[in-house]
Amino acid sequence: MTSPNHPFLAACRREKTPYTPVWLMRQAGRYMQEYRKLRAEFSFLELCKRPDLAAEITVTPVKRLGVDAAILFADILLILEPMGVGLEYSKDDGPVIHNQVRSRTGVEQLVEFEPAEALSFVFEAVRKCRVALDGRVPLIGFAGAPFTLASYLIEGGGSRNYLRTKKMMYTDPGAWRALMERLAHALAKYLNAQIAAGAQAVQLFDSWVGCLAPDDYERYVLPYTRATIAAITPGVPVIHFSTGTAGLLRLLRAAGGDVIGVDWRVDLDAAWERLGYDVGIQGNLDPVALFASPKEIRRKVAEILKRAGGRPGHIFNLGHGVLPETPVENVIAMVEAVHELSAR
Amino acid sequence: MTSPNHPFLAACRREKTPYTPVWLMRQAGRYMQEYRKLRAEFSFLELCKRPDLAAEITVTPVKRLGVDAAILFADILLILEPMGVGLEYSKDDGPVIHNQVRSRTGVEQLVEFEPAEALSFVFEAVRKCRVALDGRVPLIGFAGAPFTLASYLIEGGGSRNYLRTKKMMYTDPGAWRALMERLAHALAKYLNAQIAAGAQAVQLFDSWVGCLAPDDYERYVLPYTRATIAAITPGVPVIHFSTGTAGLLRLLRAAGGDVIGVDWRVDLDAAWERLGYDVGIQGNLDPVALFASPKEIRRKVAEILKRAGGRPGHIFNLGHGVLPETPVENVIAMVEAVHELSAR
Repeated sequence: MTSPNHPFLAACRREKTPYTPVWLMRQAGRYMQEYRKLRAEFSFLELCKRPDLAAEITVTPVKRLGVDAAILFADILLILEPMGVGLEYSKDDGPVIHNQVRSRTGVEQLVEFEPAEALSFVFEAVRKCRVALDGRVPLIGFAGAPFTLASYLIEGGGSRNYLRTKKMMYTDPGAWRALMERLAHALAKYLNAQIAAGAQAVQLFDSWVGCLAPDDYERYVLPYTRATIAAITPGVPVIHFSTGTAGLLRLLRAAGGDVIGVDWRVDLDAAWERLGYDVGIQGNLDPVALFASPKEIRRKVAEILKRAGGRPGHIFNLGHGVLPETPVENVIAMVEAVHELSAR
Repeated sequence: MTSPNHPFLAACRREKTPYTPVWLMRQAGRYMQEYRKLRAEFSFLELCKRPDLAAEITVTPVKRLGVDAAILFADILLILEPMGVGLEYSKDDGPVIHNQVRSRTGVEQLVEFEPAEALSFVFEAVRKCRVALDGRVPLIGFAGAPFTLASYLIEGGGSRNYLRTKKMMYTDPGAWRALMERLAHALAKYLNAQIAAGAQAVQLFDSWVGCLAPDDYERYVLPYTRATIAAITPGVPVIHFSTGTAGLLRLLRAAGGDVIGVDWRVDLDAAWERLGYDVGIQGNLDPVALFASPKEIRRKVAEILKRAGGRPGHIFNLGHGVLPETPVENVIAMVEAVHELSAR
């Protein structure tokens, strides 16, 4: 059993910790040789669906990097596959949704499903992770937030301007509402099943919501993110993460979460002040900073820790996922710097 | 002659105006049939280099839309061509730089040039625009800011993570400094030559600087943007524009500009408060909002005007350029809504 006083879990509750806990988004990923070896043999989706391998991938960086939390190896789009939209991960261009949702009819054609059955491989991976971690560090489960998932369903992949997504919001608010309600409902079930299987905290990724004006966020997104977070098993910390949202912080806070994850494009102290100190904060080193020298990385870590001011409730992380070309030794240097410089 | 009391110029000086002046970035562009017709016959670069056509393209939207300023038809990358880097506009993927700058040697190989000679077609277009506008509205000249131009030179085009740009900043600060100094120097000459030819205000586009952490902006960008702005002919208003910079506002303000252009991802009132009221503000409707109904567009215009609070120094604009698929009638509805709802 992981102790409930483990620094990561204590920081989620804004309790004092002996040092600032640290983990990295995509800490299990292509920048690691161990992972690239597995990917030479299996596709990304195959790895997600093999609980033994998913657990191995989840645990490896905990050993290699000395981070304070594990995050389940999975993907935010897995929940879309049982909806019947035709999910595929292409070699270079990222995820593709073949049957895009563009109308009310499209929303109604989405298959209703029971996460517990359709995504059983995820929960099996959670159980295997907990066994493999053996209480070493807590395990974080996760899912995409309603807006980010809706944007993939509507655009069919990544997007520059989110033209179709916003068009649906503005011109077919009934379809938008139906889609967001359906996603919020499925997400709550999915996250709670991860928790039931052993996830000790969950992170909601609203990775692309930073494309919205604050008024649009408040009207078209906040109610559904709030509903998702409100339905999560009480007592389990929720990290509410997004990028490019320096202008949305108060609204993100209003939507919920015990910890708000921010990216590097805002100063951590300014962000925390705007969020309010009654919530934790996660972040916020630029992933590209890991391409600098270890000395410069250490300087940047110190700067962020200074901005956090030793206040309980800071979890150190990057502002987005580790990039594939990142040198592993620099990641290790970053983790060490966080631990050393924050030791109290 | 345009009156120096024209609403656009008065707003740049934060003087009271009878209504809020409005123009749109890329108001001369692909969403207009007149422009598409010309593009069927000429390449983008050909149009930029034909002062008669560039002037025609500049003036058309002033007549069609009823906006309060014209912006020269040109491109932020034109200044890079005489540096010998091999600039090309590909059909779909945007601009390409063939000889990318990746080192100190690369910086030193950039050709030194006299903007007055190498870019004479730009100044000729400015003169023709002034004649064609016949005092109807002021003419805005423009250029890319040092960071955004450096990112194109280094990455060779657009970029998702600006990995190479930031790597040069972090690991070869001497090369970075040499590049930024050279760009700042050329930009000041270029903008002053536009002003000498007749531009009545200038906008500096730091379109991609929102990818930076505030500390990196302050260290690696601010001094060069400040030098560029400080060297601009006194008395000519400077609009300092960027996107995704809700977390950088105070630093952008410190770099300079009479008016700070902000995008839609921050509330205009929150942005202006952070900038300080001793500077003007330009913005900030989401370009995608122009795909909503005229009624919804009007509601969004009213919301932005309310946030501006009737304070002198607000210039209405989009938060970035008009998108190619935008319905012209919605642009006209937006301009009318700004004029009607802000009439004092």
